Amino acid sequence: MKKYIQENQDKYLKQLIELLKIPSISADPSYTADVRKAAVWVGDALEEAGCDNIEIIATIGHPIVYAEKILNADFPTVLVYGHYDVQPPDPIELWDSPPFEPVIKKTPIHPEGAIFARGACDDKGQMFMHIKAIELLLENNKLDCNVKFMIEGEEEVGSDNLEKFIKENKEKLKSDIILISDTGIGNVEKPAITTGLRGLSYMEVMVQGPNRDLHSGLYGGTVANPINILSKMIASLHDEKNRIVIPGFYDMVEDISPSDRKEMNTFNSDDEEFKASIGIDATYGEEGYTSHERKSIRPTLDVNGIWGGYTGEGAKTVIPSKAFAKISMRLVPNQKWEEISKLFESHFKNIAPKGVKVAVERHHGGQAYVTPTDNDGYRAAEKAYKEAFGIAPHPKRDGGSIPIVPMFEEVLGCKIYFNGLWIR
Amino acid sequence: MKKYIQENQDKYLKQLIELLKIPSISADPSYTADVRKAAVWVGDALEEAGCDNIEIIATIGHPIVYAEKILNADFPTVLVYGHYDVQPPDPIELWDSPPFEPVIKKTPIHPEGAIFARGACDDKGQMFMHIKAIELLLENNKLDCNVKFMIEGEEEVGSDNLEKFIKENKEKLKSDIILISDTGIGNVEKPAITTGLRGLSYMEVMVQGPNRDLHSGLYGGTVANPINILSKMIASLHDEKNRIVIPGFYDMVEDISPSDRKEMNTFNSDDEEFKASIGIDATYGEEGYTSHERKSIRPTLDVNGIWGGYTGEGAKTVIPSKAFAKISMRLVPNQKWEEISKLFESHFKNIAPKGVKVAVERHHGGQAYVTPTDNDGYRAAEKAYKEAFGIAPHPKRDGGSIPIVPMFEEVLGCKIYFNGLWIR
Repeated sequence: MKKYIQENQDKYLKQLIELLKIPSISADPSYTADVRKAAVWVGDALEEAGCDNIEIIATIGHPIVYAEKILNADFPTVLVYGHYDVQPPDPIELWDSPPFEPVIKKTPIHPEGAIFARGACDDKGQMFMHIKAIELLLENNKLDCNVKFMIEGEEEVGSDNLEKFIKENKEKLKSDIILISDTGIGNVEKPAITTGLRGLSYMEVMVQGPNRDLHSGLYGGTVANPINILSKMIASLHDEKNRIVIPGFYDMVEDISPSDRKEMNTFNSDDEEFKASIGIDATYGEEGYTSHERKSIRPTLDVNGIWGGYTGEGAKTVIPSKAFAKISMRLVPNQKWEEISKLFESHFKNIAPKGVKVAVERHHGGQAYVTPTDNDGYRAAEKAYKEAFGIAPHPKRDGGSIPIVPMFEEVLGCKIYFNGLWIR
Repeated sequence: MKKYIQENQDKYLKQLIELLKIPSISADPSYTADVRKAAVWVGDALEEAGCDNIEIIATIGHPIVYAEKILNADFPTVLVYGHYDVQPPDPIELWDSPPFEPVIKKTPIHPEGAIFARGACDDKGQMFMHIKAIELLLENNKLDCNVKFMIEGEEEVGSDNLEKFIKENKEKLKSDIILISDTGIGNVEKPAITTGLRGLSYMEVMVQGPNRDLHSGLYGGTVANPINILSKMIASLHDEKNRIVIPGFYDMVEDISPSDRKEMNTFNSDDEEFKASIGIDATYGEEGYTSHERKSIRPTLDVNGIWGGYTGEGAKTVIPSKAFAKISMRLVPNQKWEEISKLFESHFKNIAPKGVKVAVERHHGGQAYVTPTDNDGYRAAEKAYKEAFGIAPHPKRDGGSIPIVPMFEEVLGCKIYFNGLWIR
C-alpha cells in the first residue's frame, strides 16, 4: 500500500491543489457558483475513487454530496462526514500568498512541507484524505467495512440544511460510527484524538444612537455615541476575573473533577511555547484555569468583528449613527446554544443605556459534544494511530465547534469519532 | 442692492452648484486633482467678483487661494478666511442623494428650500457668500473697507500648510479683523454669533493581540482578543459620571461662573426639540451640565471610527490580530491640544493589559478659541444682524473646532469674528 501511495503522490497532490483553488466561500453569496463547482468536484472525486450511487443533492442553500461503497450487509458501516466549503479569507492582506493559489512551504513544524491555502486543513484536505483512503483500500482489496460519504457545503455558515437532509434520509445514512476529520492531532510525537468539541452561539449586534451621522464638534458630548456605548457594553460582558456576566450563562456548565483536570493538562504544551507560537507576551483568560482548560472545558466569549464610523484614511470628526459587532460564544456540554443565545440577547438589550437602540440578530449555533473512549470506534482509531505514529493517542477536548455534530448522534443514533490530523 | 441680488439669484445659484459638484475631498489622495480644480474655481470666482492680485499658491499639500481689493490705505481691512475642501462623504449609503450632485429640497427648517450636497454649508456655500458679497458691494459702489481673501484647501485635514504661509506673509495678510463664516447662526428667529470654538485632538489607536488572526474555537479564551481589549480600554476612558479619566485632562479647564452659565443656557433650544431633531430618546453626557454646556464649554471624547475582525456578510469565528479606533477630543480654552494628545497617548498605553501591544498615532489638532464681544468687529456684526434679521444677535460658544483659528490671532495680531449662517 505504501508503494501505491508513493506512486500516486504527485497525482493526488495535483488533485487536492485543484480543489483548493476553488473559492468555495459559503458565507458570501457572490461565490455561490464556486461552492457548487466544489460540490461537483467532490462528487467526481468520489466516483473516481470507486464509490457508487454518487448524488449531488440540491438544498435551498449549498448542495450536499453523497456517495457509498457497500461491500457486504454484515460488515460494519462507517459514515464519513466532511465539508467542502471554506471561511472567507478576509483580511486578505494578512495572507503571505493568495488564499486560493496554494503554495507548498517548509516550516519548523512541517519540515517536509505543507500546503498553504484557504481550506487546506479545514476541511478540504482532511475530507480529500478519506476519499483517497477509500481509493487506496479498494485498489488494494483491503476495504473490510462499508463506507458512506456525506460531504456538505454549509459547515462554515451553520449547516442550515443538513439536519433536514439527515432526518429525511435516516435509513440511507444508517451506520455504526461516524468519522469526522475536521480537528487537529496536537503533534505527531504525542498524537491526540479529539473526544469533545465546544458548542457555539454566534450573534450580531447593532447599537444606534442618533438617527444620522453627526458632526462630533457640534454634537460631541450631548448624545450617546454608539461606538463608545457599544465598547462599554462589550467591556461589561466580562468581570474582573474574565468570567462572562450574562445571568444564567454558567448555570449548566459541568464541574470537572480535579483529577480529570490534572490529566487533561498533562499532555498539553506549556504556555511559553504557546505564547511564542502566536507572538504574545502573556496569555489572557478566565481566572483559575490553565490555557488548555480555558479553550476546552470552559465557555468563552469573543468579539469576532466590530465596525462603525469613519474607517478610511486620515481623520473625520463624525459621531456615527450606528455601530456593529459580531460576537460569538464557545459553549461546553449541557449549555444549550439556543438558550444561551436568548440569554445573550436579553442581557445585551438590558444593559443598553438610554439614548441608544439595540438590535440583536442570532446567527448559527450548535451544542457541545463529548464522545466516549471505551468502545469499538475509539479502539479502532487508537489501533490505527499506534500503527501510524508508533505511539498510542491520548484523548483530548477541543476548543472548536462543529455545530452540527450533536444532531448526528441524536438523529442517527451512533457515536462520532474525530480523527483529525492538523498539526499546529 | 436687493434688486441686484434678485436679478442675479439664478446665476449665483448655478455657480454655487457648479462648485459643489467638485469632489474636493482633501483627506483622500485620490481626489487631489479635484481639490486643485476647486482652488482654481475659487480663484476665477474672486476675479469675476472684481478682486485683484489673485494667486493660487502651491503648498506641499493643497493650494491656498489669495485675492484682495484694496480701496484706500486708510480704510479698515477685513481678511476673509474660508475653505474649499470638504469631508469625505462616507458612509455613502446614508445620503438620500449623491453628495456631489446638489439638489434643492424644502424642509421644515428650510421652507424656501436648501441645497443638499457635501460642502453646501461647510464651507463652500458660506465662503461663496463672501465672494458674492464683494461682487455686490463693488457693483453698487458700496464697499467701504479693504478686503483680503485667504481660502484654503486643507481645513478638513488640519490646515497643515497654512501656518507657514501666514507666517511668511504677515505683511500681505495684515488686517484689522478676520472674518470667518464656517459656523451656524442657531436659528433666524434668535440669531447667534459664535464667540468661541472648541479645540481638537485627534488620535488613532491600534491594539494588537496575537501576531496573526486566530480561530476563535481553537484559541478562544486563552488570548487577549484585541477587539474585546480595545472595547474595554475605550469604555474605561469615561467614568460613571461621563467624565474623562485621563490624568490631567481637566487641569486647565476654566470654571465658568453660574451667572455666565445661566445666560448661555437662556438662548438654547430645549432638550425635547434637540432630541426630536436627531431621533434620540435621551441625551447623554457629562453629569451636572446641560446639553448646551456639554457641547460648548466642556471638553469631550468621542470614538469617530472603529474596526477589526470580520465585518462582512454572515459569520466568521475569528480572533483578529489587530483592532483599530479613531478617537478625538474636543477641547476648551486653556487646554493645549499638543499636551492633551500626549496625555491621551501615555494614558492609553498605560491602561493596556498584558498580552497586547498598543500603538498610538496623533492626527491633527488645534486650540480652542474665544473672541470678545466689546469691540468694533463684534459691534459691526451685531449691527448687520439687526438690519438683516430685525433682532440683535446673542453671543454663543460653539462645540466645533476650526483648529487653525488661534494661530491667526497669534501671528496676525487681530481678533476673529465668526459670522456663520448655518441653520440647524
